[in-house]
Amino acid sequence: MQSQRVLIVGMDGYIGWSLAMNLAARGHKVAGIDNFSRRKNVAKVGSDSATPICGMEDRIRIFDLVFRNFKGSISFKEGDLLNYSFIKDYIKSFKPDTIVHLGEQPSAPFSMIDREHAVYTQYNNVIGNLNLLYAIKENDPNCHLLKLGTMGEYGYDTEFEIPEGFFEIEYKGKKATVPFPRMAGSWYHWSKVHDSNNIMFACKLWGLRSTDVMQGIVYGTRTGQTVCDELLTRFDFDESFGTAINRFCAQAVIGHKLTPYGKGGQTRGYLALTDSIQCLTIATENPPEKGEYRVFNQLDKLYKINELASTVQKVAAKHGISVEIEAVENPRVEKEIHEYKVIAEKLRNLGFKETRTLEEEVEIMLLDLTRFKKRILARKEVIMPKTYWKSSTVQVARNH
Amino acid sequence: MQSQRVLIVGMDGYIGWSLAMNLAARGHKVAGIDNFSRRKNVAKVGSDSATPICGMEDRIRIFDLVFRNFKGSISFKEGDLLNYSFIKDYIKSFKPDTIVHLGEQPSAPFSMIDREHAVYTQYNNVIGNLNLLYAIKENDPNCHLLKLGTMGEYGYDTEFEIPEGFFEIEYKGKKATVPFPRMAGSWYHWSKVHDSNNIMFACKLWGLRSTDVMQGIVYGTRTGQTVCDELLTRFDFDESFGTAINRFCAQAVIGHKLTPYGKGGQTRGYLALTDSIQCLTIATENPPEKGEYRVFNQLDKLYKINELASTVQKVAAKHGISVEIEAVENPRVEKEIHEYKVIAEKLRNLGFKETRTLEEEVEIMLLDLTRFKKRILARKEVIMPKTYWKSSTVQVARNH
Repeated sequence: MQSQRVLIVGMDGYIGWSLAMNLAARGHKVAGIDNFSRRKNVAKVGSDSATPICGMEDRIRIFDLVFRNFKGSISFKEGDLLNYSFIKDYIKSFKPDTIVHLGEQPSAPFSMIDREHAVYTQYNNVIGNLNLLYAIKENDPNCHLLKLGTMGEYGYDTEFEIPEGFFEIEYKGKKATVPFPRMAGSWYHWSKVHDSNNIMFACKLWGLRSTDVMQGIVYGTRTGQTVCDELLTRFDFDESFGTAINRFCAQAVIGHKLTPYGKGGQTRGYLALTDSIQCLTIATENPPEKGEYRVFNQLDKLYKINELASTVQKVAAKHGISVEIEAVENPRVEKEIHEYKVIAEKLRNLGFKETRTLEEEVEIMLLDLTRFKKRILARKEVIMPKTYWKSSTVQVARNH
Repeated sequence: MQSQRVLIVGMDGYIGWSLAMNLAARGHKVAGIDNFSRRKNVAKVGSDSATPICGMEDRIRIFDLVFRNFKGSISFKEGDLLNYSFIKDYIKSFKPDTIVHLGEQPSAPFSMIDREHAVYTQYNNVIGNLNLLYAIKENDPNCHLLKLGTMGEYGYDTEFEIPEGFFEIEYKGKKATVPFPRMAGSWYHWSKVHDSNNIMFACKLWGLRSTDVMQGIVYGTRTGQTVCDELLTRFDFDESFGTAINRFCAQAVIGHKLTPYGKGGQTRGYLALTDSIQCLTIATENPPEKGEYRVFNQLDKLYKINELASTVQKVAAKHGISVEIEAVENPRVEKEIHEYKVIAEKLRNLGFKETRTLEEEVEIMLLDLTRFKKRILARKEVIMPKTYWKSSTVQVARNH
C-alpha cells in the first residue's frame, strides 16, 4: 500500500479525528482542517461531548508521543470551507492525493429547528462543498474527493431495494442506468442530495474523481487508536447531534428510560465507528478512476429502532443496569413501520468486513460511558426531543 | 374566474413584467417585488436590454393610464428574497393567493463564468427559495407557490421520453411512481433542481401547494399588453442572458452571422413569450390542491438549433435582410446531436393553446428589433460566447 497525502476536512469531528488517527497509523501523511463548528453548535444546543475531548494541539501531541514509531503524521490548521482563498491555498500547498470531506453540518434535527438553522445548514454544506469542488479543479484536479453523504439521501419511503447510487430501469421500451431517486426527509438530508448532484456534475464537467459515501448511522466510542482517554473522539447524546444507539447508551448509564420515537419500526442501516473508519480507509486506499463518480452504500446491518432499544436494555442488564423502554411521540415526519432493503456490496468487494457485533460494541460503549456518567447527568435535559419536524418549532415532548 | 391577489417575485424581468400586465388586465390584483439584479447583472456582462425599458414607477403609471378600465392593478416594492424579514412581512401584509416565483439568477452561462458566479447563483437561488418557503409556511400556508423551473433540470442526455416530473417504473418486480431523474448541465440548472427538491419536501412536510414549471426556452418581444413602447418588457441578446432564438434575431437585424454552437443538433422545447404568459396565467387560475406538488412541462414545440437558425434566416430574407449561418465552437459541455422526447399535456388539458407559429413570432421580433438596431449594434461584442463550460474560464471564441 502506497502512503498518501490525505486532507481531512472536518478533522475535529466524531469521524474526522478517528479517521485521522487510523490513516496516520497506517503510514499516511494526514493534514486536517476544521472550523470547530461542531463544538460550537453542540454548545449552542446546551450540550457537550460525553467524552472529555482534548483540543487539537494536545490530541496531535499525544498521538505523536504514543504512535512515534509509525511513519504517518497528523497536522492541523483551523479554517473554513466558506473561506475560498483559505481552502484553495491550503490545497495548493499540501497537494493531497485524497480529500476526505466530513466538514458539514451533520444533524437533521438541528436543520429543522427553524428557518435560520435550515438556511445555515444548506448554505454551509452546499456552498462549502461547491468551494471545495472549485479548489480541487483549480489546484489539484487529479485528487480523489471522498465525500460523506448519508443513506438518508435515498429516504425511507421507497419500496425498491436501494442500489449503490444508480440503477438500470426500463421505461416505455428503453433501458438506461440512472440515479436512484433521492427522497430525503430533512433540510440537512436534502443538503447532502444537493451536494451529491453538484459532485456528480463536477466529475462529468471537469473529469474530477469522487466517491460519494451513503453512510448508515454510526455508533460506538472507540477505534483501534483509542489507547488512552486523551485520544478519545467526541461522543454526542443530545437530540440533535446524538444518534439512536449512542443516545440509548447514554440514557442507560444515567438510568433514563430508553425513548424510541413513535412505533419504533423505523429501519435504518448501522455500522460501528471503527467499521466506518475501516470503510473510509478502504475507499481512500482504492481511489476511483479519473472522471469517475462512484457511490458506496456504507453500512453493516439493518435494525429497527425497537431492536436497538431492546439490545441496549439487554446488554445493560448484564452489567447490572436496569432500564425501561418507553416510546415517545415522534417529532419527525417519517414512516414508523416500513420495508427497507439495501444493497451494500462495493465496500465488501474491496475487503470490508465488520469487526464486531452490535452487542459487543454496545458493551464497550456502556463501559466507556459509565466512566463519564457525571458529564451526561449534568446535561441530561438535552436528550429528549424538542424539535418537531412538522411545525419546525420547538415544543416539549409528550409521552406516546 | 375569481380575481386573485398575486405576488410576482422578480416582476422586473422578461417574464415578470409581461405576466404582471397580463394578470392585471385579467382583473387580478398584482403586487411585485424585485431586487433589480437582472438589470445589474446584464450591465456587469457589458450589455443592456435591446428594448429601451422604463423604470418600474413609469411602467406602472403608464399601464394604469392605458388600462384604466380594467379592474386589476399592479403595485411594486424593491426588495430581496435573501432579506427574510422583508419577504415575510410583505407576504403577511399582502396575503397573496398565488406567489409566482421568477426571482432567480436565470442564466446558465453566467453561472459558469467562474467560482464566484457559480456560488452566487446557487446561493441566491437556493437560499432565496428556501426563505420564500418558510415565509409562506409561517404567514400564508394556503397560498399557491408557482415556481419557475426549467426543462434543463431533466437534462438532454436521457433517451427516455420525459414525463411531467414523475414516472411509474418497475424494478426487481416492484412498481412505484418516482421523480424522473434530473441530470442538469450547469450550476444554474442544478440550482433549479435543488429548488425543486426543496419545494417537493416543503409540500410533503408542511402541506404547502406548489406548481413547479419545467419551462422550455422563451422567445419573442411582445404580449397582448405591449400596446406602446413604454410598456415593452426587456429583451436580452448577450451570450449569458440572451437565449437562442432571441440572440439569432438580434444578430440578423445588425447583419451579424447567425452562430449556432457546434453541430447544431441540440434539441430543446420552445414557446413564445405570450404563450409562456398564457401558461403561467392558466397555472395561477387553476391552483393545485393543498399539499400537492405538481410539475408542468411548459413548452409549445421542439426544435433543433440549426432549424431555428434557418427559420430566422428565411424570415429575415423575406424582409430583405440577408444573413449567413456559421457554426462556432460549442462553449458548453452537451450532446450536439441527440434524441429528445417530451410529454407536455397538463397545461393543454387546462386549456393552453399556442397563439402563433415560430415564423410569425420571428417576424414580429425582427420588426421590433429593427427599430432598436442601434442599441444592439452599440453592444454587439457581447453576443459571441466567451464563457467555456469545461474550463469555466473566459476564452475567445473560435470559428468551428
